[in-house]
Amino acid sequence: MNMEKTELLYSGKAKDMFLTDTPGVLWVTYKDQATALNGKRKVQIQGKGALNRQISGLLFEELTAAGIPTHFIKDLDDHTMLVRQCEMIPLEAVVRNLASGSFERKFHTAHLMKLTPAVHEFYYKSDALDDPFINDEQIKALGYADTATLAAIHELADRVNALLQKRFAGIGIALVDFKLEFGRLANGTLVLADELSPDNMRLVDEATGKSLDKDVFRKDAGPLTPVYQVVLDRLKGVAHV
Amino acid sequence: MNMEKTELLYSGKAKDMFLTDTPGVLWVTYKDQATALNGKRKVQIQGKGALNRQISGLLFEELTAAGIPTHFIKDLDDHTMLVRQCEMIPLEAVVRNLASGSFERKFHTAHLMKLTPAVHEFYYKSDALDDPFINDEQIKALGYADTATLAAIHELADRVNALLQKRFAGIGIALVDFKLEFGRLANGTLVLADELSPDNMRLVDEATGKSLDKDVFRKDAGPLTPVYQVVLDRLKGVAHV
Repeated sequence: MNMEKTELLYSGKAKDMFLTDTPGVLWVTYKDQATALNGKRKVQIQGKGALNRQISGLLFEELTAAGIPTHFIKDLDDHTMLVRQCEMIPLEAVVRNLASGSFERKFHTAHLMKLTPAVHEFYYKSDALDDPFINDEQIKALGYADTATLAAIHELADRVNALLQKRFAGIGIALVDFKLEFGRLANGTLVLADELSPDNMRLVDEATGKSLDKDVFRKDAGPLTPVYQVVLDRLKGVAHV
Repeated sequence: MNMEKTELLYSGKAKDMFLTDTPGVLWVTYKDQATALNGKRKVQIQGKGALNRQISGLLFEELTAAGIPTHFIKDLDDHTMLVRQCEMIPLEAVVRNLASGSFERKFHTAHLMKLTPAVHEFYYKSDALDDPFINDEQIKALGYADTATLAAIHELADRVNALLQKRFAGIGIALVDFKLEFGRLANGTLVLADELSPDNMRLVDEATGKSLDKDVFRKDAGPLTPVYQVVLDRLKGVAHV
């Protein structure tokens, strides 16, 4: 496949998306940029984009192989992957297995308290409204997703959670929580889209209790790329002494 | 029934609840007090307690007759009713038929936009946490209600909504939204509890578009009791010229 990127479609905090000369195929570049506090803090971190692209590509490939419909087509180079163009559902779906972050703060729970069943939360993607927390009936009444779409998203989120929890447990990492986004292909199929990286997950090393995700950056707890490299190496089966 | 109130069980913003000499029966006094801004603004309004007691008693009686399990036993005097003692579910259930208040502000919707299906929202009753908005999975994971209880609450809320919407439509009033609370009797039965008054509902006169509820007080739009009197009179079938 000889692919050329054309028009810039979207420039986000962590990724740029371009149209290509093939209709329905997007070119996604993972950036060397980290943001926190809803974009107020912004730092260039060399190597972060390549790490996230590799982790994301690897996980999308494995989920696709396990039967999860995703937007992923293939890796192109260090910073770039090709994905199917989607009409995005304007929701962030957060899945929580253990209490952390905003959940822990909101409900004053113990840190990493086990949540059974896993909690699903939706946030409506709107800069103007500051991405409000939204419940299922609000989503339906406001027309952001219909009943069938929401049910499919809940079911896909549970399946992705089961697969990722098991995958990370196998390499000594607890999957605390993560964010998913979904879209529809031109043929109407609902697919997992966006990215799957430590930017959008909380991962805790089961041996040391240390964070292996963007919390390292959020909390200014040292350099980020060595931590993301640990996640990638473990996923690839590379031994760490 | 010769009933004596004994120990004060609970003193709230709008009601006091006392134990009585009959186990399982509570004495509820509706107060002449109005609060706004989460209790920061507090005013005595003579006659409000008696109006709310009458409206609440009338609606509880009608809902009970229509098959809704409630905590209501009977009216005792102007300010007082007897209710069954419940173990309260620590949730406020808000049902919204038309966009208003916090919903309208949060999602920047048109005022009184029709919401289909009716939106259910839950707020966890906790002064320490400032009554946070909470979704169904959070409620389950935190143990505030189990799956069966939540399903029963959703179903009861829909039934109450259908009955109240029809009742108010028959007297020229749109039921915009309202708050319900539920509890369990000693035998485990889930019942509608708390109160049903213009303190906890938004009501709009279909002819004039004017508020017939606590928004009059919240917005400092004139005296409250004449407005609550209109609601009571219409419910009782008393003609207003």
